[in-house]
Amino acid sequence: MPLGDKLGWEKSESRYCGVETDFSEDMPQLLTFNISSGGFDFVVAPLMDPTYRPSLMEKDGGGLCVLPFSGSDLVLSPSQWSSHVVGKISSWIDLDSADETLRMDSETTLKQEIAWANHLSLQACLLPCPKGASCANYARCVNQILQGLNTMQLWLRIPLMKTEQDSMDVNSSNLIDSWELWNSFRLLCEHHSQLAIALDVLSSLPSVNSLIRWFGESVRAAIIHTDSFLTNARGYPCLSKRHQKLVTMFFNHSIQIVIGGKSVHSSPGASSNLVANNFDNNVEKSVQRHPLRSYLDYVGYLFQKMDPLPEQERFELGYRDFLQSPLQPLMDNLEAQTYETFEKDSVKYIQYQRAISKALLDRVPDEASITTVLMVVGAGRGPLVRASLQAAEETGRKLKVYAVEKNPNAVVTLHSLVKLEGWEDIVTIISCDMRYWDAPEKADILVSELLGSFGDNELSPECLDGAQRFLKQDGISIPSSYTSFIQPVTASKLYNDVKSHKDIVHFETAYVVKIHNVARLAPSQPVFTFTHPNYTSTKSNQRYKKLQFEIANDAGSAMVHGFAGYFDAKLYKDVHLGIEPSTATPNMFSWFAIFFPLRIPVCIQPGSPLQVHFWRCCGASKVWYEWCVTSPASSAVQNSNGRSYWVGL
Amino acid sequence: MPLGDKLGWEKSESRYCGVETDFSEDMPQLLTFNISSGGFDFVVAPLMDPTYRPSLMEKDGGGLCVLPFSGSDLVLSPSQWSSHVVGKISSWIDLDSADETLRMDSETTLKQEIAWANHLSLQACLLPCPKGASCANYARCVNQILQGLNTMQLWLRIPLMKTEQDSMDVNSSNLIDSWELWNSFRLLCEHHSQLAIALDVLSSLPSVNSLIRWFGESVRAAIIHTDSFLTNARGYPCLSKRHQKLVTMFFNHSIQIVIGGKSVHSSPGASSNLVANNFDNNVEKSVQRHPLRSYLDYVGYLFQKMDPLPEQERFELGYRDFLQSPLQPLMDNLEAQTYETFEKDSVKYIQYQRAISKALLDRVPDEASITTVLMVVGAGRGPLVRASLQAAEETGRKLKVYAVEKNPNAVVTLHSLVKLEGWEDIVTIISCDMRYWDAPEKADILVSELLGSFGDNELSPECLDGAQRFLKQDGISIPSSYTSFIQPVTASKLYNDVKSHKDIVHFETAYVVKIHNVARLAPSQPVFTFTHPNYTSTKSNQRYKKLQFEIANDAGSAMVHGFAGYFDAKLYKDVHLGIEPSTATPNMFSWFAIFFPLRIPVCIQPGSPLQVHFWRCCGASKVWYEWCVTSPASSAVQNSNGRSYWVGL
Repeated sequence: MPLGDKLGWEKSESRYCGVETDFSEDMPQLLTFNISSGGFDFVVAPLMDPTYRPSLMEKDGGGLCVLPFSGSDLVLSPSQWSSHVVGKISSWIDLDSADETLRMDSETTLKQEIAWANHLSLQACLLPCPKGASCANYARCVNQILQGLNTMQLWLRIPLMKTEQDSMDVNSSNLIDSWELWNSFRLLCEHHSQLAIALDVLSSLPSVNSLIRWFGESVRAAIIHTDSFLTNARGYPCLSKRHQKLVTMFFNHSIQIVIGGKSVHSSPGASSNLVANNFDNNVEKSVQRHPLRSYLDYVGYLFQKMDPLPEQERFELGYRDFLQSPLQPLMDNLEAQTYETFEKDSVKYIQYQRAISKALLDRVPDEASITTVLMVVGAGRGPLVRASLQAAEETGRKLKVYAVEKNPNAVVTLHSLVKLEGWEDIVTIISCDMRYWDAPEKADILVSELLGSFGDNELSPECLDGAQRFLKQDGISIPSSYTSFIQPVTASKLYNDVKSHKDIVHFETAYVVKIHNVARLAPSQPVFTFTHPNYTSTKSNQRYKKLQFEIANDAGSAMVHGFAGYFDAKLYKDVHLGIEPSTATPNMFSWFAIFFPLRIPVCIQPGSPLQVHFWRCCGASKVWYEWCVTSPASSAVQNSNGRSYWVGL
Repeated sequence: MPLGDKLGWEKSESRYCGVETDFSEDMPQLLTFNISSGGFDFVVAPLMDPTYRPSLMEKDGGGLCVLPFSGSDLVLSPSQWSSHVVGKISSWIDLDSADETLRMDSETTLKQEIAWANHLSLQACLLPCPKGASCANYARCVNQILQGLNTMQLWLRIPLMKTEQDSMDVNSSNLIDSWELWNSFRLLCEHHSQLAIALDVLSSLPSVNSLIRWFGESVRAAIIHTDSFLTNARGYPCLSKRHQKLVTMFFNHSIQIVIGGKSVHSSPGASSNLVANNFDNNVEKSVQRHPLRSYLDYVGYLFQKMDPLPEQERFELGYRDFLQSPLQPLMDNLEAQTYETFEKDSVKYIQYQRAISKALLDRVPDEASITTVLMVVGAGRGPLVRASLQAAEETGRKLKVYAVEKNPNAVVTLHSLVKLEGWEDIVTIISCDMRYWDAPEKADILVSELLGSFGDNELSPECLDGAQRFLKQDGISIPSSYTSFIQPVTASKLYNDVKSHKDIVHFETAYVVKIHNVARLAPSQPVFTFTHPNYTSTKSNQRYKKLQFEIANDAGSAMVHGFAGYFDAKLYKDVHLGIEPSTATPNMFSWFAIFFPLRIPVCIQPGSPLQVHFWRCCGASKVWYEWCVTSPASSAVQNSNGRSYWVGL
């Protein structure tokens, strides 16, 4: 049973809670006790008798012996196995032991258990945490298994642990950061998309900066041990504020919770020392309250307590971490559907109207009876024409508007809009590409909305350079400038989606994406700025920027899978518009972020800067970006000559 | 004119010497002076007037102006351009300057000059050394150019320089190692195969350990400045012993020499201050001795002084750094040509004969009249049968020989050999796979030659495990054991050849290769050992080995492109056979080394160990290796499940 049906949550946003159990030979009973009666959604249960060791099996029995699994595949229905059971791989295995017999026994057992789980079509198996700092042989074996797996996931159990620099003993030479262990394991397994993480949440938590790294990794489950709970005034389990916040973040990132350990809190109707599978065959007793029920209830309470998602966020749920190719509005004509979506973004047009009003007030004195010539370049189906006329009305200024639009399909709508609104005397529609239009007069104000997620990436600079010909020398461009921004991110989901195409082209493409399961590793920094009008003599829209990012000192190492990109535009004076996280315009939905992937993810450490280079290159018929890293080590320059990704002029 | 026609050198082994010149508008004269009269093989000459700056060109002339190249393409014949001229790119360019005008001028000039050189079909252009430690924009631009180049090479000029740790000023925080600059540049250019190095040899040389790194990199030319020469007793130029040794190594690695700078030594018949292109139009004067002739003569002298290549080396010239797939003698039958080659390796059979003789002497007392049963398993066309019979004759021991061979084609030859030599009474031929032969009696001595370059890689362990059934309990196996070895190497040629296939399969394959242009970065270490006969209870031919390599402290950083592999076999007691460099059997040619590539080359530093893992995995129908690196960072495990490379059982 999902954690409550919340108002404002889609079914896809339900969260489940599992329970870690001991080995049982009676799977149906285990499910009845923990799920039907206990209220949990699934069990994380061992599949094989923990005393089993292949090397101790009687040699004589040989091929005839039956492996000590928890019952046959028939004891549960296929859907019960797959919906309610996560296989817990024997925790004694140690593939990197110095003891060769233990190593060989471990490899055999691991392969047998996963083959069995695969046979049962379980959704996932929980792999025990590597025993030491070295995990090469374990990873090699898991990597072999991953090559032949159906859709089952393997969750590597990793304690959420990082010793802090300042609390470090002077004598102890090495810090423990469990992320390093995970990183080594997944690198050895080549970022396999079915290898995921189950985080063991302990009673003490590492720093916030180190915690956030995990939200860019493929964490599927968080196992909270009963020991990690505090006790409230009434004797019930509860979590510390920091733990509560963390659990809320788990919910937000679709990470399922699992309760592990014995009950250590009083719970009405159950003796406190029962473990999860310590049930009785007596039916009357088995309907008694599950010993871990109060932990489950508390987790459910935390889920219920969360604020519902804002409507816009809920609308965008389906877009989270989904890669889209950026629009090419200059080369291609937008479709009605796209105009429809963008026109609904009222916040954006309110900002435009404010900017135009301010410009009109600045340009035309109150008493003057001057008609301002305003040109909307890229008028689309007319939202900026409307904003301009509203600004004129609001300020009491007279306008003459030219609406220039290259898309003949949008021009049709524009004509009917003008007729419908009775704007025929004020608005002149020009069906032409602004770069080639021969204007009959010059404009006081040039209004455009040509920005992409990365500012200049839909070629606003090139379009406005062309349109500038018909702007008066003292005329105003709205926007007057815009700047792109990037920040390094951990984004294993995005990286794996790019990688799944198995070619270089996809690694050298920038994507529009609603980034969600992503760790932002450092504040964003400005990249390229364009200002309009631009009367400098050596007018070039080529750009080159070198950036240096530092990860927080207490964060630990982290993996950079690429860069999240944003923009901020100055429309007019203090009126801005943008998606850069620290200054983003609230409640605007026209733009998601952009994502520039790295072909080979880069591991960075505190104290060692990440040096990044971005180029905007211009050719005869296209504009493109190239990017690379030069520190901690040099990468290849990506997208050389725009071979993979470019925007057509 | 090549540097002398040496006895024992193939044409492919000729070496050439060029001269670096200043800009000249008269290319034909430049060639006459330096080549026809001067004796050099080629000039490294600027193609464009060094005073040219794109930003200073008259804007009016615009599209009409002619670029200030050194004459039109017609002043030399196509073959003169391509054989005798290396284009020297303007040395003033600085693409990473803080001055944007200089940066833009540099990019324009670089592109114009290389486009011109490409038009002339020059074999190579010399790129000036990056001006500072940062070279990202320079590399980005060169990388763009490389994408569209015909076959022309770009030689990046790099000074052969590395400050030593111990000579370091305490105040100066960073060591200078020009290899780092090269490494960053080529990583940014994605190891492009047409990007190569021209080393500037200075008067002082870095440590030997740091020098050897370059011999695994793509060094095409070494520019020796006249300042780097010493003066001998007669006033002529000569080089220090260390420089001489280095030049000899350049010759050995097909690196062409270029003389640069002004003459600073007396030279008969020429005034000493003439620079290379400071010739006169007066024909009588132009036949005078070239001012740098004595440097050329000295280089020619060093070449002549070299020892000629041994015959075997000369025979193997064509195999240098050429990747071959390892044989699969168990799955496939060898061809006559292959037997022919191997049988010629007399050194190998002398070692076998010595081992068999020793075994016979140990096993049979002088006075005894015992017939020893010796089985040659994998007899091929009979060389080991012959060696066995010769050992028997040499020691006066009586033999009964079984020659077991699975290849029916080889058995034909074996029969005719036995008949021809009259061995019918002693030798019984068995046409059968040794793993399945039902032997009529047991052997005293089992002789085999089933080893590959990596020892066990042609499945000798599996074959001998099978043959062991018919070896007496106290019987002897020759070989009695064998061990594989690996060492990390810089091998940019091999890496690029593997990479050219653009797939993962080739990166996960081991190759047999006569390694030559390779830098061995640390002594080799043992990997897997097999001993025969093997009576242990848990008989498994699976192996796992973790190795740790350290690069020499004074070497500087280096790039590991993969691992060179070897073997050493103990035939009997002190008689061994092998190719491990420090103990290799001299004059044996049956085995080249094996090369295990790394998909992503790993940069290593002194003081930070390289940790490597190798596995030998056994399946039902195949045996394969997997390998990975876990320090300085973890790589993917290569060849998981033998998906790319395996040896069939």
